[in-house]
Amino acid sequence: MGLDARVRQAIADGFPADFLSEDPSDLAEYGRDWTRVIAPAPSGVAFPRTTDEVSRLLACCNEAHVAVVPSGGRTGLAGGAVAANGEIVLSLARMRRIDPVDLVGGTVRVQAGAVTEAVHQHCAAHGLTWPVDFASKGSSTVGGNIATNAGGGRVIRYGLTRQWVLGLEVVLASGQVLDIGGALEKNNTGLDLRQLFIGSEGTLGVVTEATLKLARVPGNTTVMLFGVADVASVLSLFREAKKGPFAIGAYEFFSQKCLDRVLAHRKLRPPLGAPSAYYVLLEVEDIAAPGIDPWIEGVFSSGVATDGTLAQHGGEARDLWALREGISESLSATGLPHKNDVALPIAKLDAFCAELDQVFTARYPGWEICLFGHVGDGNLHINVMKPNALPREAFFAKTKDADRDLFALVQRHHGSISAEHGIGLLKKAFLGFTRSPAEIAVMRAVKKTLDPNGILNPGKILD
Amino acid sequence: MGLDARVRQAIADGFPADFLSEDPSDLAEYGRDWTRVIAPAPSGVAFPRTTDEVSRLLACCNEAHVAVVPSGGRTGLAGGAVAANGEIVLSLARMRRIDPVDLVGGTVRVQAGAVTEAVHQHCAAHGLTWPVDFASKGSSTVGGNIATNAGGGRVIRYGLTRQWVLGLEVVLASGQVLDIGGALEKNNTGLDLRQLFIGSEGTLGVVTEATLKLARVPGNTTVMLFGVADVASVLSLFREAKKGPFAIGAYEFFSQKCLDRVLAHRKLRPPLGAPSAYYVLLEVEDIAAPGIDPWIEGVFSSGVATDGTLAQHGGEARDLWALREGISESLSATGLPHKNDVALPIAKLDAFCAELDQVFTARYPGWEICLFGHVGDGNLHINVMKPNALPREAFFAKTKDADRDLFALVQRHHGSISAEHGIGLLKKAFLGFTRSPAEIAVMRAVKKTLDPNGILNPGKILD
Repeated sequence: MGLDARVRQAIADGFPADFLSEDPSDLAEYGRDWTRVIAPAPSGVAFPRTTDEVSRLLACCNEAHVAVVPSGGRTGLAGGAVAANGEIVLSLARMRRIDPVDLVGGTVRVQAGAVTEAVHQHCAAHGLTWPVDFASKGSSTVGGNIATNAGGGRVIRYGLTRQWVLGLEVVLASGQVLDIGGALEKNNTGLDLRQLFIGSEGTLGVVTEATLKLARVPGNTTVMLFGVADVASVLSLFREAKKGPFAIGAYEFFSQKCLDRVLAHRKLRPPLGAPSAYYVLLEVEDIAAPGIDPWIEGVFSSGVATDGTLAQHGGEARDLWALREGISESLSATGLPHKNDVALPIAKLDAFCAELDQVFTARYPGWEICLFGHVGDGNLHINVMKPNALPREAFFAKTKDADRDLFALVQRHHGSISAEHGIGLLKKAFLGFTRSPAEIAVMRAVKKTLDPNGILNPGKILD
Repeated sequence: MGLDARVRQAIADGFPADFLSEDPSDLAEYGRDWTRVIAPAPSGVAFPRTTDEVSRLLACCNEAHVAVVPSGGRTGLAGGAVAANGEIVLSLARMRRIDPVDLVGGTVRVQAGAVTEAVHQHCAAHGLTWPVDFASKGSSTVGGNIATNAGGGRVIRYGLTRQWVLGLEVVLASGQVLDIGGALEKNNTGLDLRQLFIGSEGTLGVVTEATLKLARVPGNTTVMLFGVADVASVLSLFREAKKGPFAIGAYEFFSQKCLDRVLAHRKLRPPLGAPSAYYVLLEVEDIAAPGIDPWIEGVFSSGVATDGTLAQHGGEARDLWALREGISESLSATGLPHKNDVALPIAKLDAFCAELDQVFTARYPGWEICLFGHVGDGNLHINVMKPNALPREAFFAKTKDADRDLFALVQRHHGSISAEHGIGLLKKAFLGFTRSPAEIAVMRAVKKTLDPNGILNPGKILD
């Protein structure tokens, strides 16, 4: 589909010469995200430099009823940033200004296109950090993190992105600019509209700037890797950790199958002497008297963990973290994964995992399943690897079918079919497994109220 | 105004005999909150026992276009729970069930009428707490805390109520019941509708149940009271505290004038040897090596604080806290305060407080101003006491007029005219000092979408 003629003319008349690209390589690149499942087909890519340009572009598209896909680092895993139907991609790539850190207030104002890791580096010099941290931080942007309410490995300590956004500048479909919140911790003056846009996957407005709340960089962290025999032990160890003489900074787990692929892809040596079915990466802070040794001894003497290592310095800690952070990349580099990202009430994880085994055994006899995730938040990433002998189409047909069994199981245990990846395009058909018809009706009504012409990221979350 | 005849008939036909009260003492009691400024005049008070009763009552009122005021502990300070125009008060007083604590997940499910302190006591036996904590916890309810996104003295450590609600059951104006979220930490499946209802002051729906997230009760806390010379020193001390070898659990301040009234009302002795212009209550946790003594010595040797005491045991800590928590009650018991509750970006507090002095000197020459608040969150409670010689009406006329100067100053510094008390009826005329016309238009559109007949807490926040 080609670019709408009125929009092309308006851009030619009122925007810089390099504002719009219709170059096929840009269309292919900016029309897709990390999902690689749906073929990109946008009609153009716009690269605004200012909020005013975003506002004028949206006003023009709204009048012409032309669909717009807001676009950050495109590291999403649900197709939320895919443009496959002649939409204009609105890339925030040129809006990556990062203001000086406000050291008194502990905040920083940034444009939405600022890359997560660049924000971390900017703040680190002051002993501060924006504690939104996950494997794709080198490419993901602040705006994308906000649009998806990004999670990651630090949620157990710091909560989701939602908790670290004090102020938001958002452009509505009409082009109207909302400046919400500023640098205030407390502001109970009517509806907190920030919350409406955070996690809305670009369907209600385009985030252009944000005032981020910062945290002190943790002083002394201790990183441990434990080998455990089964999922039940992963949870038992978590219960022990919650009683430990420290604050839990991260509680991650992964299976031996995940580790094998990371070791193969990154050419690393095994972290422990012998393989274990599952591994737990535990990072702790603020260790109180009598120190961590008695706790570790208890873990081994009770048999909850069968093996383990404690990082002796920062380099070893980074090496242990690399095993966990390298999983997603290594699965994609060494095969074709079908990804699911579910969450359960923590109290239901035991029962869920037992039933999950049955579903997998029935659905994928002999297939390779790679389990990992932020299990301290009830969050499991479930990756099914395509068997070499199976054609791609047959593989996706089979997994799509099996997803319904998985999601029905999630529903029975009152879980979420998308803990942190969002709904986008790929999970849309399954939204009803987690959200009720009444909730979906309210979402639809709010969408209609804020974007009556339906130009913002149409087809994402809802049809 | 009397009760609508159709609603009376529907209640007589379909609800228990004790469901509705039209007793004048109930109307007076349940029609007002702690503000005492507006005369209550509801037409009836409904006391449901179940969500189904709430649902059926709302459906009936919606059809008859009868206004409903949701009602919790009525400890609000903005008139959000006042029923002054023949509304039906929907009291959650009979819905105070508290389920057993989920020790694995660290959550508890409660009905909205559960009293905050009762929830604390329920969880304390397990070493857990719902860290929403403020002076009116003995009367305030979970539903009211959620409806107002309550703050308090622990926000600096734990954040607002919003961060401690995992699941919500909400009844819409139509009577439809939404069951949102459950016991999930992570659930990125479309709009987070919980956030819409949290802080909406009962204008979008009635919260009937919630799954609360719990925190570990802090192990060892240390409570200190410092005397300082001026507001600038309050902020300097805060900057020192942020660099201290501990986590800040609370950072509260109050003036000598506040302290005088607490000491008089509660018949207590002064906490320090000599009076100071201002006091800071600092509670810290997780003290790291080399302990707190060098930090305290630095505070005194640099002259930031002029006096101070450190609680030697739990009893002394409670005594220090009582000085701060007793202020609101003592001001009301010893005089008639006009209350404001503003927030500023922390980096603007210095400049704001200097200009505030000028406003007060011009507006209230010789009057008694009592300043206190959660200053670590940028939150100041500003109380102007009625001079004995001035009639009540003249006092309120004068303060109402002066509020515009105060709010204009707040606006110039990008602050909030209501940090934690909400808007309700009393701040409605001033909403535009903090929220833009564009924001207010969005709020109005969302309200219209969720409550098209405008039956839920009409006239609160917006006209």
